[in-house]
Amino acid sequence: MIVTIAGGVGGAKMAHGLAGAIDPADLSVIVNTADDFEWHGLQISPDLDTVLYTLSGLVNPETGWGIAGDSRVALDAMTRLGEEPWFLIGDQDLATHVLRTARRRAGASLAEVTAQLGNSLGVASHIAPVTNDAIATIVNTPDGELAFQDYFVRRRQQDDVLGVRIAGIESAQPASGVLDAIETAETIVIAPSNPIVSIAPVLDVPGVRTAIHRARGVKVAVSPIIGGKALKGPADKMLHTLGHESSALGIARIYAGLVDGLVIDQVDADLAPAIEALGLRVIALQSIMGDGADRARFAREVLDFARSLAVGAPA
Amino acid sequence: MIVTIAGGVGGAKMAHGLAGAIDPADLSVIVNTADDFEWHGLQISPDLDTVLYTLSGLVNPETGWGIAGDSRVALDAMTRLGEEPWFLIGDQDLATHVLRTARRRAGASLAEVTAQLGNSLGVASHIAPVTNDAIATIVNTPDGELAFQDYFVRRRQQDDVLGVRIAGIESAQPASGVLDAIETAETIVIAPSNPIVSIAPVLDVPGVRTAIHRARGVKVAVSPIIGGKALKGPADKMLHTLGHESSALGIARIYAGLVDGLVIDQVDADLAPAIEALGLRVIALQSIMGDGADRARFAREVLDFARSLAVGAPA
Repeated sequence: MIVTIAGGVGGAKMAHGLAGAIDPADLSVIVNTADDFEWHGLQISPDLDTVLYTLSGLVNPETGWGIAGDSRVALDAMTRLGEEPWFLIGDQDLATHVLRTARRRAGASLAEVTAQLGNSLGVASHIAPVTNDAIATIVNTPDGELAFQDYFVRRRQQDDVLGVRIAGIESAQPASGVLDAIETAETIVIAPSNPIVSIAPVLDVPGVRTAIHRARGVKVAVSPIIGGKALKGPADKMLHTLGHESSALGIARIYAGLVDGLVIDQVDADLAPAIEALGLRVIALQSIMGDGADRARFAREVLDFARSLAVGAPA
Repeated sequence: MIVTIAGGVGGAKMAHGLAGAIDPADLSVIVNTADDFEWHGLQISPDLDTVLYTLSGLVNPETGWGIAGDSRVALDAMTRLGEEPWFLIGDQDLATHVLRTARRRAGASLAEVTAQLGNSLGVASHIAPVTNDAIATIVNTPDGELAFQDYFVRRRQQDDVLGVRIAGIESAQPASGVLDAIETAETIVIAPSNPIVSIAPVLDVPGVRTAIHRARGVKVAVSPIIGGKALKGPADKMLHTLGHESSALGIARIYAGLVDGLVIDQVDADLAPAIEALGLRVIALQSIMGDGADRARFAREVLDFARSLAVGAPA
């Protein structure tokens, strides 16, 4: 089994590549849920949905999230009823949220609902929330603390991030199977998602870091920072204001001690010696993932790199 | 003020006619809520919505319910996610249910949410649920008891109705303003809705019948049975299996003692003497309501009839 730890769009592309590089049934995607929020009483799990829609082929290829060709009839009707439509929910997407909310209110866990949705959409890989418990990213800014989607969507990531905390994480428990999947995986791939608000909330669920340390497989991370910039989202700016370096080296410092190797982009190849000095093996690849075939190409290269790090692998 | 007591399609047409016959701000529509149900965790009030959509002009003129031109993208997506779409919810309609549910969960009463929805849609008349408390029509059939929408939608009204009870009605309280509107109205019009499952749940909320008895205005009912048949729905069959006569005379027997007069259709004019023998005044009109102008024509004739019954009116 291959395990990947993923946030939203970048994580979903990595998972999609891995599902195309191996038997997709051998892939387990452990997904951040600290972005989850309630929208008009509906429980929305943006990262789970992005992974779900990407692996099922429904995703909107232009945005990387949402469903291709989705309409916004219900959203427009809500506007007519006096609501400000700050968060875009398409009609097909809305069906996911209505069902998730109804099934959870009826007693199903988020993991159970996620598995059902994956089955219904024909996804062969296992998609799991890191936890069934409510955890919530809170971003501290010069204007005070903001709920994640307020910062991310409503205010378009324009605030400087002075701190991040994940409410509820101390008492969160890993969802059933998460620790076991990590500990027994042949390879663990930390996807090129935002290390602060996408990957850290997974790693910080009690038990997850320990499971990674105990894991018998090879652990690699893929840098989300290429040439000092995030491909998407505010990771670069956020790293900077939080005192990290917005570079593949900054990413290496964050993951040093946790993973065996780091995949960086070719444009950052000159950083390899400094990363190796941290005790990490490193490979520089063409890491910008294009269409499905290119994602699988990249995933194969990442897995080849991981296999080369395995104990007993030829040097 | 004019008050009308209404169920779904027939009641909404009557309310629409009245709103066209008088200043619509002088109309109060008191609506049945015993058909309300939960659909995937969303709180649906079919009769309130039919009245709301009809008075706002959004209604689908072909069905008499739902929103004209509504799409079913979310419903199809729910089918893809494994749900059987037995109850048709359009995308625009879905927005109403999402907002109603969210606002109620946030603490607003059904009456408050209904008033907000009416305001947002530019409805000048006051639309009110008879009660904010949960009441639910349960239909007894040869196959046992059925929740109302199971009987009405899922099983297409094919079961013989052996009995009807309204769960929760003994402890239901009239919504704020309902009793006062009834007691002070110039005219109360019981709309041509199903007397068993649309009008009775309104009348049977504790306090409503007493308020009608004490009301100072004229009270008239409009027969939903024309030539022995219901224009729409199972009222005729239901009256029969419950031991009533499916005729305007049967309707007169149900409302005798409660109203001063009954409006029947011209085709039932021969029943007028028998109805008058019950102590009711009667008028035979062209009672099938067509478009908006025809509804207003009919409503004016109903109001003229009511005025002719007022104490002190010329004989």
